[in-house]
Amino acid sequence: MRLATIRTDEGTRAARLDDDELVVLPFGDVGRLLASGDDWAQRAAAADGTRIAVSAADFAPLTPAPEKVFCVGLNYRDHADEASLAVPEYPTLFAKYGRSLIGANDDLAIPTASDKVDWEVELGVVIGRPARHVSEQDALDHVAGYTIVNDVSMRDWQLRTSQFLAGKTFEASTPVGPYLVTPDEIDHARSLSMELSVDGEIKQRTSTNQMIFSVAEVVSYISTVITLMPGDLIATGTSSGVGHLAEPPTYLGEGNVMTCTIEGLGSQTTRCTAPALEAVR
Amino acid sequence: MRLATIRTDEGTRAARLDDDELVVLPFGDVGRLLASGDDWAQRAAAADGTRIAVSAADFAPLTPAPEKVFCVGLNYRDHADEASLAVPEYPTLFAKYGRSLIGANDDLAIPTASDKVDWEVELGVVIGRPARHVSEQDALDHVAGYTIVNDVSMRDWQLRTSQFLAGKTFEASTPVGPYLVTPDEIDHARSLSMELSVDGEIKQRTSTNQMIFSVAEVVSYISTVITLMPGDLIATGTSSGVGHLAEPPTYLGEGNVMTCTIEGLGSQTTRCTAPALEAVR
Repeated sequence: MRLATIRTDEGTRAARLDDDELVVLPFGDVGRLLASGDDWAQRAAAADGTRIAVSAADFAPLTPAPEKVFCVGLNYRDHADEASLAVPEYPTLFAKYGRSLIGANDDLAIPTASDKVDWEVELGVVIGRPARHVSEQDALDHVAGYTIVNDVSMRDWQLRTSQFLAGKTFEASTPVGPYLVTPDEIDHARSLSMELSVDGEIKQRTSTNQMIFSVAEVVSYISTVITLMPGDLIATGTSSGVGHLAEPPTYLGEGNVMTCTIEGLGSQTTRCTAPALEAVR
Repeated sequence: MRLATIRTDEGTRAARLDDDELVVLPFGDVGRLLASGDDWAQRAAAADGTRIAVSAADFAPLTPAPEKVFCVGLNYRDHADEASLAVPEYPTLFAKYGRSLIGANDDLAIPTASDKVDWEVELGVVIGRPARHVSEQDALDHVAGYTIVNDVSMRDWQLRTSQFLAGKTFEASTPVGPYLVTPDEIDHARSLSMELSVDGEIKQRTSTNQMIFSVAEVVSYISTVITLMPGDLIATGTSSGVGHLAEPPTYLGEGNVMTCTIEGLGSQTTRCTAPALEAVR
């Protein structure tokens, strides 16, 4: 099953993909569907509603208001090499706030405050059931499905201090979606090709089988710290090929178009636009 | 005006301190009161309701579900010296999630997963109006008031990787409250004595006038990154005297009692208890 959060005239709605149509479900977004109880999948599969052609869909952030967004740093061997950092003993966790998320095909307004806007395609994990003190063996039972996250990073702000947060949580900067794909369709995303291009030129290309800490390890590890809740999002790390570490360093600017694709999960197209002093959302 | 979030038989409620009584307000918590619109202070001042003796009050986290909790690292000169780190050029920002917060006098269950549980008394800033791209000059207009935060830190988890998050966001580990005190009562907390003791022995003692980045600077800086929303919490950093940097290092264990006091803001008493595999909240 594939689920999305789409914008409609009545606000955002969760929707289920049926062939080339999206069936609008009676939930405001995928996060609220997941929070509706452990049998969310049955409810999502059974519901019927208005149908919208995929070609006409306006994708909102898949989970627009997750309680938590965790990101894993340095979780691909080639990216650790690229950054000249040792393969870590523990997952490097940092945060993003829900207000940073945008839809899969939304424009990205380059912030006036940053000269070093960079890309990072990542496998996103969406939590389906509360997870607290879960073992690696049980961890995948708490995963609702998988999606694409582009962990867009303002490198100047990220690297000003020891802590990445400021550069990772700029308003409306992180595309997530278009779909939550349930684990049964993609074998829990164990081995999916993943790539990112800018203006048609491939910058990142890897497979999810190159992750250092598996999804099960990461979910179990976080659940020792805090309860993961339905709708929570985990961005599981990026591979080599980011702009900041290219020779010479390359950053995003107005007019660039990024495409992120993960096998079985679909793709995102993100156009970079001029800065805008946006209204408060 | 002093506001609190208290637990009642009907769930949590915002309340206003009148002498030695708390007047229950028609809002579920202080965060929801602040989100009710720019005239929240008039509404809070005018409302009447059931009265509860302060001595009988059970304080919940002041803002139980903030959209964001930002923390500032290394924001006191003496703490930067203690940690042998240079005075920073920019505020070091890291995150905590709302699920980490506990009430001002709640017990702290020492997690089984950590052997290095440490204290950090801090001035907490609570946002009252959305703040986006605000100047330092205007920043304080967006502050609803001030409170006490004990940024309890699991040093082993905090220092396992470069990123502090895991050690800073353990479930139910961060006392916040008891009161939000409005800026008019305390001159925007510019110069308040602040101290923390463990079992009656003073460990930290400083004044908020020792901060490197002022509240106005921090609010303005964050607002360049992302919109601060009513109820958001900023923990503005701690002074010297943490247990991890003591000789020899000292950590919290079952039976220890912490007291955090900030002049004009009241105090917190936190008893450390045995680990508990808590139910999901």
